[in-house]
Amino acid sequence: MSMNVSGGEVRINQQMVDYAEQLIPALYQEKVYPKHQIEVIQDERAFQGWKTNVLEGFDSLQEKTFGKGDSFILDFGDHQVGYVSISIKSVGSPPDAPLGIKFIFGEMPCEVAEPFEAYNGWLSSSWLQEETRYVDVLPAELHLPRRYSFRYMKVIILDTSRKYTVAFSDIHCTAVTSADVNRLTPLPEGLPEDLQRMDRISVRTLQNCMQTVFEDGPKRDRRLWIGDLRLQALANYYTFHHHDLVKRGLYLFGGMTLNEGQVGACLFEKPSPHVDDTLLYDYSLFFTATLSDYYEATQDMETLRALWPVAWEQLMIALRRLDERHIVRDDPSWWCFIDWQEGLNKQASAQAILLYSLKKGIRLAQALQLSMETELLESQVQSVAEAARKHLWDSSKGYFVSGEDAQVSWASQIWMILAGVWDQTENVKLLERLFADRTAVSLSTPYMYHHLIEALMENGMKDKAIEQMRYFWGGMMEDGADCFWELYNPEDKSFSPYGSNLINSYCHAWSCTPTYFIRKYMV
Amino acid sequence: MSMNVSGGEVRINQQMVDYAEQLIPALYQEKVYPKHQIEVIQDERAFQGWKTNVLEGFDSLQEKTFGKGDSFILDFGDHQVGYVSISIKSVGSPPDAPLGIKFIFGEMPCEVAEPFEAYNGWLSSSWLQEETRYVDVLPAELHLPRRYSFRYMKVIILDTSRKYTVAFSDIHCTAVTSADVNRLTPLPEGLPEDLQRMDRISVRTLQNCMQTVFEDGPKRDRRLWIGDLRLQALANYYTFHHHDLVKRGLYLFGGMTLNEGQVGACLFEKPSPHVDDTLLYDYSLFFTATLSDYYEATQDMETLRALWPVAWEQLMIALRRLDERHIVRDDPSWWCFIDWQEGLNKQASAQAILLYSLKKGIRLAQALQLSMETELLESQVQSVAEAARKHLWDSSKGYFVSGEDAQVSWASQIWMILAGVWDQTENVKLLERLFADRTAVSLSTPYMYHHLIEALMENGMKDKAIEQMRYFWGGMMEDGADCFWELYNPEDKSFSPYGSNLINSYCHAWSCTPTYFIRKYMV
Repeated sequence: MSMNVSGGEVRINQQMVDYAEQLIPALYQEKVYPKHQIEVIQDERAFQGWKTNVLEGFDSLQEKTFGKGDSFILDFGDHQVGYVSISIKSVGSPPDAPLGIKFIFGEMPCEVAEPFEAYNGWLSSSWLQEETRYVDVLPAELHLPRRYSFRYMKVIILDTSRKYTVAFSDIHCTAVTSADVNRLTPLPEGLPEDLQRMDRISVRTLQNCMQTVFEDGPKRDRRLWIGDLRLQALANYYTFHHHDLVKRGLYLFGGMTLNEGQVGACLFEKPSPHVDDTLLYDYSLFFTATLSDYYEATQDMETLRALWPVAWEQLMIALRRLDERHIVRDDPSWWCFIDWQEGLNKQASAQAILLYSLKKGIRLAQALQLSMETELLESQVQSVAEAARKHLWDSSKGYFVSGEDAQVSWASQIWMILAGVWDQTENVKLLERLFADRTAVSLSTPYMYHHLIEALMENGMKDKAIEQMRYFWGGMMEDGADCFWELYNPEDKSFSPYGSNLINSYCHAWSCTPTYFIRKYMV
Repeated sequence: MSMNVSGGEVRINQQMVDYAEQLIPALYQEKVYPKHQIEVIQDERAFQGWKTNVLEGFDSLQEKTFGKGDSFILDFGDHQVGYVSISIKSVGSPPDAPLGIKFIFGEMPCEVAEPFEAYNGWLSSSWLQEETRYVDVLPAELHLPRRYSFRYMKVIILDTSRKYTVAFSDIHCTAVTSADVNRLTPLPEGLPEDLQRMDRISVRTLQNCMQTVFEDGPKRDRRLWIGDLRLQALANYYTFHHHDLVKRGLYLFGGMTLNEGQVGACLFEKPSPHVDDTLLYDYSLFFTATLSDYYEATQDMETLRALWPVAWEQLMIALRRLDERHIVRDDPSWWCFIDWQEGLNKQASAQAILLYSLKKGIRLAQALQLSMETELLESQVQSVAEAARKHLWDSSKGYFVSGEDAQVSWASQIWMILAGVWDQTENVKLLERLFADRTAVSLSTPYMYHHLIEALMENGMKDKAIEQMRYFWGGMMEDGADCFWELYNPEDKSFSPYGSNLINSYCHAWSCTPTYFIRKYMV
């Protein structure tokens, strides 16, 4: 996610930040070689209009020489996150001019096929992965300085001279992750093949986002968002069990809050940890939910004790936004995330997330045996839920409504279900109604789909949940996903909220949860 | 110079090469800051159509911030060769996307004004000095990896993000040279101001070409050509007295010859010393001349003894090209350099250079008291000179003629004069004839102009020599030269033999000799 919100000063708890820094994980490294030389050709029937054809194996590349204007595309066979090294030698006369060479990295074929120059989206073009080098001395070993997230690598010889060409004696990627793949339990054999594949891709997505924090996208944004962290942590508890990486994230968010004590929406690690000035109502609340999930998975009382005051403060701050009806005040600005869905009103979802988080808070307060706080939160749960039923439930429509225009959306229903405003019987009816009529404002991100699946699973609608997973993540698989994507609309496959396919992230944290559903509910 | 000549195997004398490598000089470093922020604007009256205007001092840059698409041009006040460091910080929200930034370096305003994309010359475009960086973490200190040769530096912000801009807390160049400026003697006060300036620019040219070898151009080619070395060494004997750098060059050429023993036209230092496969008749012979000049300046008998066999071999190989008339056989290929002048026939010049080099060889043989070799060379001088007078002198025209078409050129006359085919009285008449009629094929490079000036000086025509220096190098000065250029045609100021101004070298070894003439003949 990338958005503008004006911010202010920050509050630092240096002890927490220092502790988080002690938890920086070592990265596992793996040397990965390209599998094939390929071509990318236009094909209307292919996803995003680009089809790949294998031309040759990688090995034969070494025998070829390349001069001015030549190019080739390598396929590493799977999504990689890492550092690329290239060994280049000259062929012919001694090189009498520098080698000009350009590298383009793509998670998807479109990135190595469409010219970056044409990019006109509203996210920074500097996310597009390219590197140009002028090499004075050959042979040379180039170690590109940036970390890339890619499967495809295009190499373009900008110029040599009339006296020499170049050949490539080695190209490889040193892939990095903080995920220990040995911690992964194999799935039982009986699971359908497509769900096994879905699990594998989902795990790969999580793995490639796991660096020194849980990044939201290893290609774009490359930082820790609490909305993504919450989902990654859930998937992590069923796969890599890297509890310290969750703990590190929690201490970073807890140790650097915005000026009124709110947990920021995202934070950066370098050059030293600092919190972004983006503030989102739902994201701040998810600190409490994420801490609760973490405690449930680890029973780490020490962390709970240390971070409880931060979690508590989020709930108190969020409650201040309630109006006299006990309804979260709406706002035309970008105050709450929920989903990228165009035109979505966030009020009802925010109300539900407050309720959801208050309930998580109660669990934490109970674990800490804080009776006064527990009582206070329980009373707030009562009034927030009651206000939702009274002011946001439209019994004639059978839907929760949101905002001035009483908008009916999937997001509002899903979050109210997850918050447990009604009981399971009502929830199931509500979900069935949604699927039956399809007039509600739709849902757009894998992040929102996660919550739909969770709502279905928790309310005994496992078959529908699997159907929806197959529709959404299965659709990505059919469209060639190596990792699960930031954005996917089975009905509009060129969808990007940023104005260009090229800038979408095709390995994105909030899309990694199929493995969580498979391993939690299906095995 | 850059040209195609197919080559073959090389002969290595490792001991000589190793000795040359021990002579790699330390480089003096100087931290240089930009002087001004400037604009470059189109102006038909300006040299190459580009005029610079000072906008502000450099210091005020630090107070400015730059976003997507912004750019600025810095003027370092004089020609620099060195490594550039840039300190960048972000302004606004925490940087949520990499900084995309491009640097363009120019010796001349045209390089920072005309788009490199439009370059279509036949030399490699990778000589055009640019660098693009994507910076993931700010603040950052960028140390650009390549050495640049420039006065002007353009900075273009490709992209930041909507949340931040950047500011520059430091930009500087660490200028490098192996020339010790303290060795330079001040000129006497009586010398005309323009010649003092000419000397200063000439010295700067030499200084900026003096790196770990005498490079021919610190921007383009950046290697040791023996044609340039010869002239640099002459200028060096009157300025920086860096004898070891000449010695290093001689040992490199002597230690790595082409397969029949010829000294190559140029050589490279990295990754390890290696000779190019370019072979030029005149350039191989200049090894002998350069060794002779070196011995004369240093009386270094040890080097003379070590390298004499190589010098001797060049003469013997060159003599084998004589036909039965004792005339150097002509050839339509690029077998001999002489000058870039279009259509120039090289035969007569080559004959003269052979004679010139034989005479230099005699001096060396005499110093070594090698009587037999001396005698042999003297007899060859006789027959080569006689053949020139007999077969290449057209007494009706009063000119030396060259090639099948009996071409009359400045180059042929100048070299025959330098070779001493006639005595001074005839030489003066010949020179006066040339200046009077102007029908001869002209001369084009500063390298050829050097030989014209030398011919004038040696034949007592000092005033004409100074007039010509003012016409040629003085013309460059009036056109804004900070260093003297590889190429200059006072009658056609956009001249480039490479198809574009952008690729010309504007600090070029073979243009550095005004200081030699001034300090040898005028003080």
